[in-house]
Amino acid sequence: MRTIKLTIAYDGTNYRGWQLQENGNTIQEEIEKALFKVFKKRSRVNGASRTDSGVHAEAQAAHFRFSSAIPSGNVAAALNSVLPEDIAVIKAEEVPDGFNSRFDARLKKYRYQILNSRTRDPFLERYSWRVPYNLNPSLMRKEALVLKGRHDFRSFQAKDKRERSSVRTIKNIVIKKTGLYLTINIEGDGFLYNMVRNIAGTLVDIGRGYLPPGSMRKILDSRDRRKAGPTAPAKGLFLVGVEY
Amino acid sequence: MRTIKLTIAYDGTNYRGWQLQENGNTIQEEIEKALFKVFKKRSRVNGASRTDSGVHAEAQAAHFRFSSAIPSGNVAAALNSVLPEDIAVIKAEEVPDGFNSRFDARLKKYRYQILNSRTRDPFLERYSWRVPYNLNPSLMRKEALVLKGRHDFRSFQAKDKRERSSVRTIKNIVIKKTGLYLTINIEGDGFLYNMVRNIAGTLVDIGRGYLPPGSMRKILDSRDRRKAGPTAPAKGLFLVGVEY
Repeated sequence: MRTIKLTIAYDGTNYRGWQLQENGNTIQEEIEKALFKVFKKRSRVNGASRTDSGVHAEAQAAHFRFSSAIPSGNVAAALNSVLPEDIAVIKAEEVPDGFNSRFDARLKKYRYQILNSRTRDPFLERYSWRVPYNLNPSLMRKEALVLKGRHDFRSFQAKDKRERSSVRTIKNIVIKKTGLYLTINIEGDGFLYNMVRNIAGTLVDIGRGYLPPGSMRKILDSRDRRKAGPTAPAKGLFLVGVEY
Repeated sequence: MRTIKLTIAYDGTNYRGWQLQENGNTIQEEIEKALFKVFKKRSRVNGASRTDSGVHAEAQAAHFRFSSAIPSGNVAAALNSVLPEDIAVIKAEEVPDGFNSRFDARLKKYRYQILNSRTRDPFLERYSWRVPYNLNPSLMRKEALVLKGRHDFRSFQAKDKRERSSVRTIKNIVIKKTGLYLTINIEGDGFLYNMVRNIAGTLVDIGRGYLPPGSMRKILDSRDRRKAGPTAPAKGLFLVGVEY
C-alpha cells in the first residue's frame, strides 16, 4: 500500500464542512466518492483540518492509503474530472508510509476576510464578513499581538467543545487593510474549535470600539468564552495552507 | 418627476441577464421589484448595457423616473435592504431630466477574465473561463491592436443579431497576465451583441496557436462571423463601468 497526500482547494459555501456526516454533503464525502468512481475502491480520506460548514480552503491537506499503481502525478487530474466544480485537487504526491496529514501538521495558516463597508459587494458576499462599522486596524493589530505565543486559548474555544488541552501556540498574527478589505492572517501549531472565528469576532469588537483597548489581554487571561466577542461567520474563513 | 441614476454591481451567475424576460429572473426585474417594495410605485428601470445571462457587472448604470421626495443619498441603502445578496446598488444620484443611461453612454468598459491553467480554481470557477492550453500573451497583445479604432466589427457580432450598423470604435484594448490569470480589458463607445465574448474567443484561439499570427486582421476584414473564434463563456465577462 502506498500513501498519497492530497492538497485540496474548495469553496465551502455549499458544503457542511470537511468531515463526513450522516446527512451531509461534505468535502470528505465528495473526495471519497471521487476516489471510488475513479479507482473502484473505497478509501478513507483523512484531512489535516476539520473545517466547519461554510468555511473555505485554498490548500487543505489530506491523505489516503492506495493500492493502485497509477503515478501520483495523474491522480489529481483523474479526481478533478469527477469532482464538483467547487472542489479541486491541486496536488497529489506520494509520501512516506505512516504520514498522517492531521497529526504530522506542524503549522496551519488561516485567513479571515472582512469587507469593511456599509455597502454589500456581490463578489465578496460568499467570501467575507461585511462589517459596516468603522474599524481601526492599528488598534486591532496592537491588541492581536497579545495572542502571539503559547497560551491557554480557552476564551476562544466554542463552549460546547472542550478538548483535553486548550493550550496552543500562535506563531504569527498579521492584520492587513487594503481599501475596504481587511484580513486577519493567523498561523499556529493548531487551533481549537471555532478559535479563529472567535478571535476574528473579538478583534472586530475591539476595532469598532465596542470593547475598550486592553480587552484582549483580559479576555485571554479570563479563560472564559463569555468574555470574548461573537463567533465571526464561517464564510469569511479560509484555510490557507498546512505545513509539515 | 426626478430622474435617478443608479450604479449597480451584480454577480450574474444566477440570472438570465439584465433585461426583463417572460420567464426570467433578471437583474432589471429584481431592481424594479425592489423599487416597488420600497416606494410602492412601479418604475421602469433602463440599463446602459443589456448584459447577457451569466455576465457580471462591477458598475452597470441605469436610470428611472421618480416622484418621491426621498433624498437620493438614501435610495441605495433602501434598495439594498430588499435586494438579493448578489445584487447591490453602489450609488444612487439625481441627474438632469432627460438623462438616458443607454443613449448618453460615452464609453463602456469590459473585462474578460481567463484562468490559464490545467487545474480548476474553485474560487474563480464562477468568474472566469479556464483555458488549459498555454497562452502567449504578447502575441495576443499584438493581434489585439488591430481591433483598436473605428471598424466594422461584423465578424464579431452574434450571427442571429444584426443591428443597423456594425461599426463601432474600440478606444483601448489591454491584455494583462499575472501568474495564471489573464485579463482582456476593452473600452469602446458601444459593443455589438456578443462582441466582447467573440473577441475573447478569437484572442484565445490566437494565443494558443490554433489560429496563426496575422489572423485578427484577416478576420476583421472578412466581416464574416464564421472566420472568428468561438464565443467565450459568459461567466468570464464583467461590465466594469460606463462613462458619460
